[in-house]
Amino acid sequence: MKDERLLIKEEQVLERIERARRRKARLREQAITLAHGSGGKASRTLVEAVFLESFGNPLLAPLDDAACLSIDGAALAFTTDSYVVSPLFFPGGDIGDLAVNGTVNDLAVSGADPLHLSAGFILEEGFAVDDLRRITASMRRAADEAGVTIVTGDTKVVERGKGDGCYINTAGVGVTRRPPSGDVRAGDAILVTGPIGEHGVTIMLARGELDIEADLPSDTAPLNGLLESLGPFAVRRMRDATRGGVATVLNEIATDHGLAAVVEEEAIPVRPVVRGACELLGIDPMYVACEGRAVIVVSGEDCEDALATLRAHPLGAEAAVIGRIKDDPPGLVLLKTAFGGTRIVDLLVGDPLPRIC
Amino acid sequence: MKDERLLIKEEQVLERIERARRRKARLREQAITLAHGSGGKASRTLVEAVFLESFGNPLLAPLDDAACLSIDGAALAFTTDSYVVSPLFFPGGDIGDLAVNGTVNDLAVSGADPLHLSAGFILEEGFAVDDLRRITASMRRAADEAGVTIVTGDTKVVERGKGDGCYINTAGVGVTRRPPSGDVRAGDAILVTGPIGEHGVTIMLARGELDIEADLPSDTAPLNGLLESLGPFAVRRMRDATRGGVATVLNEIATDHGLAAVVEEEAIPVRPVVRGACELLGIDPMYVACEGRAVIVVSGEDCEDALATLRAHPLGAEAAVIGRIKDDPPGLVLLKTAFGGTRIVDLLVGDPLPRIC
Repeated sequence: MKDERLLIKEEQVLERIERARRRKARLREQAITLAHGSGGKASRTLVEAVFLESFGNPLLAPLDDAACLSIDGAALAFTTDSYVVSPLFFPGGDIGDLAVNGTVNDLAVSGADPLHLSAGFILEEGFAVDDLRRITASMRRAADEAGVTIVTGDTKVVERGKGDGCYINTAGVGVTRRPPSGDVRAGDAILVTGPIGEHGVTIMLARGELDIEADLPSDTAPLNGLLESLGPFAVRRMRDATRGGVATVLNEIATDHGLAAVVEEEAIPVRPVVRGACELLGIDPMYVACEGRAVIVVSGEDCEDALATLRAHPLGAEAAVIGRIKDDPPGLVLLKTAFGGTRIVDLLVGDPLPRIC
Repeated sequence: MKDERLLIKEEQVLERIERARRRKARLREQAITLAHGSGGKASRTLVEAVFLESFGNPLLAPLDDAACLSIDGAALAFTTDSYVVSPLFFPGGDIGDLAVNGTVNDLAVSGADPLHLSAGFILEEGFAVDDLRRITASMRRAADEAGVTIVTGDTKVVERGKGDGCYINTAGVGVTRRPPSGDVRAGDAILVTGPIGEHGVTIMLARGELDIEADLPSDTAPLNGLLESLGPFAVRRMRDATRGGVATVLNEIATDHGLAAVVEEEAIPVRPVVRGACELLGIDPMYVACEGRAVIVVSGEDCEDALATLRAHPLGAEAAVIGRIKDDPPGLVLLKTAFGGTRIVDLLVGDPLPRIC
């Protein structure tokens, strides 16, 4: 994959910007493909061409991790995610804690304190009750760790061959305390809260599709405590880097704000086992899902203090500053490689790793 | 099925009460069956033995249609449901409006004004984009009709053979305005807002499993406007009669309050086509799902005025008083038949009609 990417040339950049400007989301496919669930370009097009087109309203339009609502005088955040990860159990976690942590994190990066979750189960006929108990016990532990309660739920059962054991949807509500300011600007620093790509690689290894033995657990974790610690700082944006990885989050930030995200390859924390697995798979760790890492844009001034604060928390011990926001080229993510080159980090069309969450 | 039910005898009643008292929910099956998704006895056992056991907390414990939350000074209701109906499109509706109306109704029967929904899609690879558009357009229309907005969403795609076209989860938040008082007592009246069993029978007919031609649309509809009109009256409980039908709702009310629900067979509105289809299927319309009908317990004094108010609304034009709450026998639902007999209306173990919603 690395080899396919282009070294940056100014005319290419200009052309791409012009293309983005002309683009109106159009879904060309007549049938859903796995790429539409990847978090990449195909997902984005589906969301814009079908969901935004049908549901379009000012609260949905930002397409953020959570919707910000004002209800009866309260400032609330509301979010949902379905989980279809395969396998259901993997080193460091399972679909249950993933479903809790994922929704907790969507609220946390919106600057909300996660409070209550719903849990909707779609079970396949024949699914082992013991596995279900293991999953619900894991959800309870994750909920306790994040300080949330599961307050409402639903269970549907589908016939054998119409599901895959267990799918879970969680929705979550929280109270918005410290929303990121949203005014990303040139000079801001870009941080990640820890090494990237671990969840995705763990799932790949758990599927046994690679002949590697590695002692790597998923990074699934609730980020609300860690992100709350950034309260004193000028935080502009926060996103959790799930499907599509850090590269996708950076692209969304660059596009949303019409600015450039320029990151240093050498500054991005990647564990050797993740790097090795990614090389064998021919994918870039920048595109691999995390389930317990956030990308944070903070003012340049607060960068060092924010980093020190993150590192003081067990879930942020390996946090790093990975780059800066710049004015040019607007809407693009640039990676400065270890060899002194610069290349565009684009959105992928699909995901090399389907059903990662 | 009718023939299997027992004519009531006092000793049977006493025995059943004693059994219920001794019962602690225990799941005997080692694998999930379709009955666990039916809304009947097996569902209840699964919920109590697995979900309540793991998640148990005071907010979840009531197992009502929605959880009542107090967040930042606001009184909120929060609920979720997944939809796996087959077929996806049927006379009078589709999975899309069903998913919106179902969640709107869960909030409405809790005395909340539904405000915002989430929408989580699990799509099967190969699903037609045109069908997805048809579903989202229908969700938008249903949301507009109910006065709610879809503010956050998620899409996952699973491989061919790991789903069934399209599953949808909706969660909903609303502000609690007029919660039912909850103090059901002897002498209260039991109302239904319209003819029962139409959704379930429509689905059966749409599956082509019965050789009947009938012009019957699903009753799927948003009940918030209708139920709001009951504001002036002493409403004790409201439930929408979905999976498991009116019989299941009445059983839950009788059990929750330790009272008897005594209903008159002749007073229960059932359209002839529904009655005819149910006879051919060997099922009782009391157990067949509605998706736009509520069961309401209101004080005996307010019964007639509440009925007149319901009937003045287009969605309640055929509302009826179907029975009364009595002290004895506690926890049971009794049906007075057209022939002057009385029989127990028990919870079914499973559902004769799987994947009805």
